[in-house]
Amino acid sequence: MGDVSERERRILVAVDEGEESLYALSWCLKNVISQNSRDALVLLYARPPRPVYTALDGTGYLFSADVVAALERYSNDVAEAVVEKANRLCKDLQNVKVETKVVSGDAREVICQMVDKLDADVLVMGSHGYGPIKRAFIGSVSNHCAKSVKCPVLIVKKPKDCGNK
Amino acid sequence: MGDVSERERRILVAVDEGEESLYALSWCLKNVISQNSRDALVLLYARPPRPVYTALDGTGYLFSADVVAALERYSNDVAEAVVEKANRLCKDLQNVKVETKVVSGDAREVICQMVDKLDADVLVMGSHGYGPIKRAFIGSVSNHCAKSVKCPVLIVKKPKDCGNK
Repeated sequence: MGDVSERERRILVAVDEGEESLYALSWCLKNVISQNSRDALVLLYARPPRPVYTALDGTGYLFSADVVAALERYSNDVAEAVVEKANRLCKDLQNVKVETKVVSGDAREVICQMVDKLDADVLVMGSHGYGPIKRAFIGSVSNHCAKSVKCPVLIVKKPKDCGNK
Repeated sequence: MGDVSERERRILVAVDEGEESLYALSWCLKNVISQNSRDALVLLYARPPRPVYTALDGTGYLFSADVVAALERYSNDVAEAVVEKANRLCKDLQNVKVETKVVSGDAREVICQMVDKLDADVLVMGSHGYGPIKRAFIGSVSNHCAKSVKCPVLIVKKPKDCGNK
């Protein structure tokens, strides 16, 4: 890794519910992280903002407080599961500091803001290319980030998506 | 670099006239290439296809054969200069095989085809974000490649382009 080993790199990996983002993390661990360098790895989960559950006519809430609370718990559970899975992939790292962050908000904004805040050296993320519709929508996250952030962006696709161009 | 050192990775770096692509190459040399692993580095220059110099009314050639020949020589010189600069950046690599390829054609097609042909492990390229107009046009190269190729894509911006979002 040449002279990189002399300084700490801040590597930000955006993780989410999809397998692709965990694959991106694994790829990063194998190909970018160096055991010799003093890398700091930040795992970021952008938690979807709590939706406003209004009725279609806008007059009131569609869901009861119970339902909202249940959705909130579910969202917490998802965040925890994602972060735990991601952390598990990093368990064999020795000289690398691993930190996890869960931030509520639109993934595009959360990720770009975190790049700035950390002054990240590289942003790693999945391409979210797992289906034509979902991709059109969510693919815009990696697309948006690649355009907006200042640092290098590594976009990783899961290999089995070969036909999914 | 963990178990990656056990096998050869094929790293494709798309280079062009812009400083950004050479910066992308430097970043890759510092952050991705490992002296311990048996990496193979392929430097690819997509040479713009020879334009068809027709008059606006489509009836004949606008340029004489002399001019076309001069443009052709210029294009050769550019290709040579780019490849030479890129090679110079790689001169200190020891265990890494470096190969250069110059292929004529639309950069988007040339790069995506080379990824497939080499079965590249990662594609590295500049984001071409050096100006609002040029970026709208050329930025589509990295955007297109990130969407189309199967392998991970590392898009590197030159740091001084901070304000150029």
